[in-house]
Amino acid sequence: MDLYPKPVLRLIQSFSRLPGIGKKTAERLTLHLLHTKKNEAETLANDLLELRKNIRLCSHCFALSENSRCKVCSDPNRDTSLICVVENPSDMNAIEKARAFSGLYHVLGGALSPIDGIGPDELRIKELILRIKQKNIREVIIATSTNVEGEATASYLAERLKGIKVTRIASGIPIGGDLKFVDQLTMQKAIKGRYGV
Amino acid sequence: MDLYPKPVLRLIQSFSRLPGIGKKTAERLTLHLLHTKKNEAETLANDLLELRKNIRLCSHCFALSENSRCKVCSDPNRDTSLICVVENPSDMNAIEKARAFSGLYHVLGGALSPIDGIGPDELRIKELILRIKQKNIREVIIATSTNVEGEATASYLAERLKGIKVTRIASGIPIGGDLKFVDQLTMQKAIKGRYGV
Repeated sequence: MDLYPKPVLRLIQSFSRLPGIGKKTAERLTLHLLHTKKNEAETLANDLLELRKNIRLCSHCFALSENSRCKVCSDPNRDTSLICVVENPSDMNAIEKARAFSGLYHVLGGALSPIDGIGPDELRIKELILRIKQKNIREVIIATSTNVEGEATASYLAERLKGIKVTRIASGIPIGGDLKFVDQLTMQKAIKGRYGV
Repeated sequence: MDLYPKPVLRLIQSFSRLPGIGKKTAERLTLHLLHTKKNEAETLANDLLELRKNIRLCSHCFALSENSRCKVCSDPNRDTSLICVVENPSDMNAIEKARAFSGLYHVLGGALSPIDGIGPDELRIKELILRIKQKNIREVIIATSTNVEGEATASYLAERLKGIKVTRIASGIPIGGDLKFVDQLTMQKAIKGRYGV
């Protein structure tokens, strides 16, 4: 890599610091930006600078937002008695895209993971409990991931939120999924969670 | 994607314009940059802005350079009677990393590809011929790719440079390669190019 001039090497290094981007990809991206019209690199640079300047967390649900209240929290058509608890903003986005939920969200900022030093105090659990106490909440839907950390977080929350209705999103066979490719745990969940038709 | 605030969407879009980066990866990179310490996004932005400002092409060989002459061309220990012709700066870098060549380079800026509208005038072939005429060149090594475009470029150059010694880098079995996985064309090249031991 020594042959490249310093500004090229620096950009390669910055790109390769991003998750999932190795040295080779970083090199390809950098050379691509050198060959395309000037404003592609500048647009990317400006968007990067604006990102951190203009994005904050919603003061209610901790979603990404330009204002102190996010789009969902400031929408008057939302059912404010329902809270869906998610780990990250991208999970919230995935649920919104499905258009299957009309309540509010609460972004925890991760999942319980003792091995990474993430305990209940590192997540926004206190804030969730405060929200539930202050508002009249009918139901809390826990939509953390279905991996070990997500399940542990769900169990912990169910314990902490005793007294109000707490539900967990369903696990089972994905739509369009072929039964023979489904893993055993998912199959167990699907059979356990069967419903009358 | 509508849920994300505009600055987030804009950066996702800018990232996904890069080659090999889809919407999902762009989303992951953007959210990563929101979660890490502030200066990672800013470093990347600054490196992007500096790239185009500080990089130009070497006036001799058209390699990427900070100055009017690149590192190789300004190195007094290089053999100036040898020119290695490559398609792109990344090819030049690959050869330099192997430390097997001590001459100068000439970066064509691509390969002949009539289907993409790239003829001899779109490459730096005139400049190569001029260099050869002006300096005392002993040998021109053609190190274009071994795909159709690279081979066509090599044949074209060999024709244009008649009168001086022109060589082509060898094709054959990669070191560590297993013969049973080698394609037929490469095997033909390897047998045709066999050498006495």
